[in-house]
Amino acid sequence: MDPTFAIGVDLGGTNLRIAAVSSGGAILEKITTGTEVVRGRDRVIDEMCATIKALALKHRTTGSLSGIGVGVPGIIDLATGMLRESPNLPGWEDYAVREEIERRLATTVVLENDANAAALGEKWLGVGAAVDDMCLLTLGTGVGGGLVLNGRVWHGMLGMAAELGHIKVEPNGPPCGCGARGCLEQYASALAVKRMAIEAIATGQAPKLARAMDRDSELSSRVVYQMAIEGDEPARAIFRRVGWALGQTLAGLVNIFNLPMYAIGGGVSSAWEAFAPSMFEELERSSYIYRATVAREAAGDKGTSPASRSTVVTRARLGIDAGLIGAARLPMIL
Amino acid sequence: MDPTFAIGVDLGGTNLRIAAVSSGGAILEKITTGTEVVRGRDRVIDEMCATIKALALKHRTTGSLSGIGVGVPGIIDLATGMLRESPNLPGWEDYAVREEIERRLATTVVLENDANAAALGEKWLGVGAAVDDMCLLTLGTGVGGGLVLNGRVWHGMLGMAAELGHIKVEPNGPPCGCGARGCLEQYASALAVKRMAIEAIATGQAPKLARAMDRDSELSSRVVYQMAIEGDEPARAIFRRVGWALGQTLAGLVNIFNLPMYAIGGGVSSAWEAFAPSMFEELERSSYIYRATVAREAAGDKGTSPASRSTVVTRARLGIDAGLIGAARLPMIL
Repeated sequence: MDPTFAIGVDLGGTNLRIAAVSSGGAILEKITTGTEVVRGRDRVIDEMCATIKALALKHRTTGSLSGIGVGVPGIIDLATGMLRESPNLPGWEDYAVREEIERRLATTVVLENDANAAALGEKWLGVGAAVDDMCLLTLGTGVGGGLVLNGRVWHGMLGMAAELGHIKVEPNGPPCGCGARGCLEQYASALAVKRMAIEAIATGQAPKLARAMDRDSELSSRVVYQMAIEGDEPARAIFRRVGWALGQTLAGLVNIFNLPMYAIGGGVSSAWEAFAPSMFEELERSSYIYRATVAREAAGDKGTSPASRSTVVTRARLGIDAGLIGAARLPMIL
Repeated sequence: MDPTFAIGVDLGGTNLRIAAVSSGGAILEKITTGTEVVRGRDRVIDEMCATIKALALKHRTTGSLSGIGVGVPGIIDLATGMLRESPNLPGWEDYAVREEIERRLATTVVLENDANAAALGEKWLGVGAAVDDMCLLTLGTGVGGGLVLNGRVWHGMLGMAAELGHIKVEPNGPPCGCGARGCLEQYASALAVKRMAIEAIATGQAPKLARAMDRDSELSSRVVYQMAIEGDEPARAIFRRVGWALGQTLAGLVNIFNLPMYAIGGGVSSAWEAFAPSMFEELERSSYIYRATVAREAAGDKGTSPASRSTVVTRARLGIDAGLIGAARLPMIL
C-alpha cells in the first residue's frame, strides 16, 4: 500500500493549529497561527484553507492525502455540519462550517468536536494506544469530554454526546453557563479554580492568595497550583475540591461505562499532584465497580485476558497536540 | 431460511421465568415458577435446566433452537460467567452460573445482567423498536440500568457497565448499599419510596401516610402512589422527589450519550403520572442537550433524517416480560 498522510486542524478560540500526519502516526509538519476571531469567521476559514492547501502540496511527495479532519470547539450538528453552540468562537453559531471549508477546498472534510478529537488522538498515539475504549476529560478554560467506544468516537444521534463537563456534581452548586447548577465545569476548569480562589480570598482566610491577586488580578489556575505545591492550605483546599468533583464524576462514568481507561488532560491536569489524592479517594468511595476492578488487580488477577484488566485513571499524554492528532486520525478511520 | 426459536430465562430473586420465543418475536410459550432460592442454587439451576429441556423438546416442530439466553440479577463477570455480586440471589456470589448451566444442558448459553436483558427486550419488541440506541432505567426494588448502543448491549470491559442505579444524585444523600451516598436507587426505587414515606410520617406532617402504615406496616410504593393520585400532599411530595432524582440522572445521561431514547420501566414506573412532571422539569433545567433537541422538535424540524430526531423520554412497554424477551434475543444477535 502506498504511504498516505492526513491533515488535521485544531480550530481553537485562540490558536489555529494545522498538521500533516502520516498514517503511521508521524507528525510531518505542524503550523500554529493565531485564530484572530475578531477578523470574522470567513477570514479564519480562508486562512485555514490556504494553509491546508499549502501543506497538502508540500507533502505530496510523502504519499497521497487520505483526507482532512477539523476539530472545532462547541456543539456540532454532525448531519448538517453546523455549529450549534460555540462560546469560544463568537458569531459562529449556526454557521455551516463544514460546507464552507468543503467549498473552498473542493473536497470533503470530517468535522468533529475538539474534545472528541482529543480523545481520538489519545486513543491513537497517546495514553490509550493499548485499549479499544476510553474516556477523556479535558480540563481547560472549561471542561470538555470525549468518548471512544470500540475504537471510534461516540457521537450520539446528533454529534452532541460526551458533554462531560456538564455532568452534575452538586444539585445546588454554582450556576453554570449551560443553565444548570453544579456542573463539573464549575469545579474542575481553570475558570473554576480562579473562582474558588476569589471565594477563598473573600473569606479573609487566604492571605497568600490575596497577595497573589494583588500582584496580578488575572490570577491564573497555575499560580494557585504553585501555591498549593508550596503548602498553602487554602490553595490546597481548592485542589482537593477539584479532585472531589472529578472523583464523583469519574465514579458515575465508571458505573455507566466500565471502561478500561479514563484519562485527564488539558491545562489544569498539570495540577495532578494537587488534586489526584482526593480524586482517587472519592472515586473509590463512590464507585463499587471501581473498587471491584481495582481489588481485582490488587489480588494479582492480571494477565493477558481482557477480563483481567483493571480500571485505569491516569493523565493524558499528548498535551495540546491531542486534538490536532485526533483530527488527522478522523479521515483515516472513516 | 428455516424458522428458529430461542429460549430466554429471567432468573429473579422471587420468580424463575422461562419462555420460548420465535425469531420473529412471537412468544410461543411462557412458564413462571417460584425461584425458591432457599433450596439452594443447585436446585434452582436443576429446575431451570429441566424446564429449558422440556421447552426445547416441545417446540422442536416449530423450528430449530438457535440458542439459550439467561438474564440474572447482579454483576456478572462476562469472561468467566461468574456472578460477582448478587444481592437478590444470596449465596450465588462467585458461583460459576454459566458453566453449571452449560454442563447440565451440554450446550453453550449466553449470560446477561437482567437489566441489560430488559433493555435489549425493549429495543427488540418494545418501546425502542424504531431506534438503534436506547437507555433503560428499571425502577424496581432497586434501580437497574441497561444500555443498547448500535443495537447491542453495552457491557464495558467486564460486563459491569450500566449500573445506572448508582449514579449519584446528591453528594451527601442517604447511604446506599453500594457504599456510596445519594445514589439514584435511594430516590427512585420501591424501597426508596417506602423510606421517604417513613421519613414523612416521622415528621408528623403526613397523617394519611401514617394511617396507611398503621393498617399495613409493609407499606408499599403502590399505596403511596395511590395516595399521591388521590391528592395527599406528602405522598405527592415523595413522587416529586422521585421525579427530581430521575430528571437529574437523565440530564447526565442525555449530556453523556445524546441517545434518541431513554425509557423507564419496572414496578415504580406505574407511578409515571406522579413523578413525570417534576422529572421533565428537572431534565429541562439540567440538560442543555435535552433543551436543544426538544427545541429542535418544537421548531418543526422533524422528518426522515436521523438528524431531525428529538430526545424521547418515555415509559417502557413490555413490563415484566422485557427481561425474558431480551434474554431470548441474546443468542439471536451473537
